[in-house]
Formats: sequence, C-alpha cells, structure tokens
Amino acid sequence: MSSPRFEPKNPDFRAAATSTFDRQPAMRTLGISLARLEPGEVDLEMPYAPAFTQQHGFVHAGIITAGLDNACGIAAFTLMPADTGILTVEFKTNLLAPAKGDRFVFRARVIKPGRTLTVCDAQAFAVQAGHESLIATITGTLMALPPRG
Amino acid sequence: MSSPRFEPKNPDFRAAATSTFDRQPAMRTLGISLARLEPGEVDLEMPYAPAFTQQHGFVHAGIITAGLDNACGIAAFTLMPADTGILTVEFKTNLLAPAKGDRFVFRARVIKPGRTLTVCDAQAFAVQAGHESLIATITGTLMALPPRG
Amino acid sequence: MSSPRFEPKNPDFRAAATSTFDRQPAMRTLGISLARLEPGEVDLEMPYAPAFTQQHGFVHAGIITAGLDNACGIAAFTLMPADTGILTVEFKTNLLAPAKGDRFVFRARVIKPGRTLTVCDAQAFAVQAGHESLIATITGTLMALPPRG
Amino acid sequence: MSSPRFEPKNPDFRAAATSTFDRQPAMRTLGISLARLEPGEVDLEMPYAPAFTQQHGFVHAGIITAGLDNACGIAAFTLMPADTGILTVEFKTNLLAPAKGDRFVFRARVIKPGRTLTVCDAQAFAVQAGHESLIATITGTLMALPPRG
Repeated sequence: MSSPRFEPKNPDFRAAATSTFDRQPAMRTLGISLARLEPGEVDLEMPYAPAFTQQHGFVHAGIITAGLDNACGIAAFTLMPADTGILTVEFKTNLLAPAKGDRFVFRARVIKPGRTLTVCDAQAFAVQAGHESLIATITGTLMALPPRG
Repeated sequence: MSSPRFEPKNPDFRAAATSTFDRQPAMRTLGISLARLEPGEVDLEMPYAPAFTQQHGFVHAGIITAGLDNACGIAAFTLMPADTGILTVEFKTNLLAPAKGDRFVFRARVIKPGRTLTVCDAQAFAVQAGHESLIATITGTLMALPPRG
Repeated sequence: MSSPRFEPKNPDFRAAATSTFDRQPAMRTLGISLARLEPGEVDLEMPYAPAFTQQHGFVHAGIITAGLDNACGIAAFTLMPADTGILTVEFKTNLLAPAKGDRFVFRARVIKPGRTLTVCDAQAFAVQAGHESLIATITGTLMALPPRG
Repeated sequence: MSSPRFEPKNPDFRAAATSTFDRQPAMRTLGISLARLEPGEVDLEMPYAPAFTQQHGFVHAGIITAGLDNACGIAAFTLMPADTGILTVEFKTNLLAPAKGDRFVFRARVIKPGRTLTVCDAQAFAVQAGHESLIATITGTLMALPPRG
C-alpha cells in the first residue's frame, strides 16, 4: 500500500518488527515467514506440513491460530514506540473451513491502535493450486509493555 | 472422579477418544499426551520445548491454544455417539500469565453437551518445581459431524 | 449494493427478515430500527437514550452488544431458507471507544454462510454531528433451526 | 463466603462498587439489582420483562449479556484501588439455552486480577419455579483507569 492508514511512532518499525518476529523459535519450527510488513499490516506465510496436522490431515486449528495470533502481534507492534514490549491479552478464532492447502497466508491489520491496548483482526487463507480461500478469522487484543527504566 | 457428571452415549468412549487423539500428528510433534480421560473431562500434558517458544523464551500463545483447543475437542468427543466426527467451530483464549514452566497441563470439561454443538471450558497451568499456576483459559464450541451414511 | 455477494435462498428474504426483526419487543424498547437490508448485510440504527447509559453517561456496552448481535442475526437470517428459525450460538465483542453520540449504527455482514452455522461480523459506529466513529466490533455464530415437520 | 479468595485494595469496596452500580441508568431500566457483593464476586438479579424479549418471548441475548458484562465489571471493580475508574475491554458470550424464566441471576467471579487488566467469568442462570438452569456464560477483560491527577 502506498498510503498507509497508520503513522508509525517508531521510524525503525520495520527493523524492530522483523527482529521480534525472527527471535521466535516457534515461528521457525512452524515454518512461518514474514511476507509483508506495513504500518499496522502484516502478512505471514506457512507451508503445509504433515507434522502439524490433525486426524483428517488438515493443519491443526491451534497451529492456524498460532499464525493468526502472531500476525496480529507483529501488526500491532509496528505501531508501538521503540523499545516497547508486546504481549497477547486475548483472542477469538472462528474456524470457517478445513485448513487444507499447499500453503497458508495470515493477513492481519490493526483495527484500533492504543497507548496500552491495540485491537487487531486477521484472516487465514488456504492456498491451493493458486486459489485462495478463507479458512479462519481472529480478533485479538495486544498490550504494549513500556520499556523498563 | 468416581461419579462422572455426564453419561457417555458411546460405551467405548475411551477407546474412541484415545484413538482420535493418537491420530493427530500435531499432538505428537508438540509432545502433548493424554493424561486423564473421563466422560466430558480431559487432561493433556506437554513438556516445555524451546522449539515452541516466543521471543522471551516462553511457550508461544498459539501452542498453548493448540493444547487448550485439543483438550476441549477430546472432552466434547467423549460425550458424542459412536462414529461421530468432530470439528472446532470457534474458541476464545485469555492469556493470564507467561507460559513459563517445566511442563504444562490442559484441563477441559464440557459445560453444555448437545446433539450438534457442545461448549467446553479449559484451563492451562504451568507446572514449575511442582507448583501449578493458571496461565490461560479457553471457551470453545465443538460440532458433532454425523457418521456418513 | 447493486451486486450482492450472496444469493438468498428465500426469495422473500426481505419480508421474512423484516418480520423477524419487528417481532422483537427488545428492539422496540431499545429504539432500534432496520435501516438497510441486503442479502447477508444489515444496518440497524439506534438513537441515544439516557435510560440505557452507564455511570459516565455513555450507552451501556451490553446495549451496544444487543444492537450488534441483532444486526448479525438478521444478516444471517437473510441467507437462510424460508421457515427457518435462528438463534445466536456465541459472540465476541471488542469495545474500542465510549458509546458517545447522538445515534448509533450497527453494520453487519455475513463472513461465511452455512447450512447449520453462519458466521457474521458487525461494527458499531457512534454518529455525532454527522461524523461516524467506530466504537465496537463483534464476531458471532448464528445457527439455523430447520422448520418443525 | 466466609473466606474471600481475594484481598480488596479499597477497604470501602462495598460502598464504591454499590455506588458505581447504582449510577448506571441502564441497570435501573433493565430492572437489574445487586444481590451479593464480595471481594471479586458479584451476583446480580433481573426479573423477566416482556419489553426485553426477542421473537420467541425469551429475553434477548444482548440483554442477558448486559447483565453478565455488568456482573463482571462490578466483580472486577471490588478489587481495584479507591478512585479507580473501570471500562470493559472485551467479552465473549456463549448462549447455552433460551432465556426462559421468571427471573435471572448473573454470577461473576474474578479469574485473574491485575493492576491494569482483570479477567472475569460469569454465568447466567434462569430461575423457574425455584429451579436454576445455566443459560449463558461470559469471559471478559476489564481495564482499570487510574484516578485523574
């Protein structure tokens, strides 16, 4: 997007958000990568992996939620001041269709940024033979932790 | 519990629920095991694993949610008729404290069983030096899929 | 919208949805009216009323939720077959700003229609001096009840 | 309860919580009253009123949610310091059975108190001919607003 909806407080938000993402071993283990990063908007991607499936061969709802939650966290983080920490307060996921695809995309955008609390939405899409279909949604609340003095 | 709150419809609910749990590669990958199984009640356990942590060394919220969601699914499944399938419709997680511990316990119990929809609650506890502390809660809706004719 | 995203199963969906809305005394009591109705999309409106405020003079979060939930229910109902009943399974509300305004608009749209379950999103806006601001969001699951045989 | 689970920070928590409850016109309009108040625990009661019903004569889900949310808010408020304000951040409601009864009871208890955020659970019961049945549950996050300096 050429005209971001939000003005980042941290001019180095890209480096800060990328570094926070990269320091999460869970993301590496799940094979999730950062595909797009704008102020208040993030896309993550994840390949299909049999190791993370449930009893029908679809990716487990908890793993899809891990991707959705992380996309929300990084999207919220892009709008926070430098040296702020972040934690997830809560989220709600609706599972709309089986997580069946070659890969998965998690698209998050900030709905309401705040000094303490930020609310984000994200959608998970399954990509199969180049076709995207919506499989899950999340709404989450993220909390900014001020730098330790 | 010697007097279960719910009467299972499937006399072989233990074998059915155990089999459904065991056929999930994601549970094996996450190291999650079935620790207790009663009608409408399930405990799962998971050891700490650095591979599933976030940037502060705590277990990722999405991984904790995978355990909570699975505990709810198996708890709901114990009350469903034989040959029924199950899927998660939605869940809501509140993260109360960092997932910091030697191991984690996920305790689910059915709140309201139903022919089509079953509502479950679960709590996640971190266990450290033998002390349990509540770290997250979930409420989820599970759907029974009738056997294919 | 000239090109609706969804095809209604009931050709008389407008009459059916309007009738269901009108038969709710709670909507009359709260002063909520139907402002727009399309397949899978509904706008409701509500004037500010001191009788439904909390301790700071803003409309109570539960009242805003009643409007959001109802908008979701009617939006889902527009896509259901004739003679179907509807009930709300669950919803999640995020309150983003105080409900301070001359009137309020609740805009719902179906995210995923289904034979049994339909998932809807809605947003609540406060309108003050002609300016709209987002004050709350909801995601809800609605269930279709087949006609009694 | 003779031994409260939580220690209130405000010795006048009863007067403060009662006053906050009483200053909500919405509670008066809905006929909701404070039935029990302990540190971190609150019961509210509401009579059946046709004015707040939906199309089948049951109390509207949004009205039940208003009672649940308020019970959570007052329960959280009992544990906050003097002169603190409170607002609801978010909540999730599961509707388990129709709100059919002579009166309704909303029972809230704090799950996790915090300096900024407090998480509460509440249950709604319908009372009919002296028999209570669970009709809805909520989990909510409440935020403490420090006194203005």
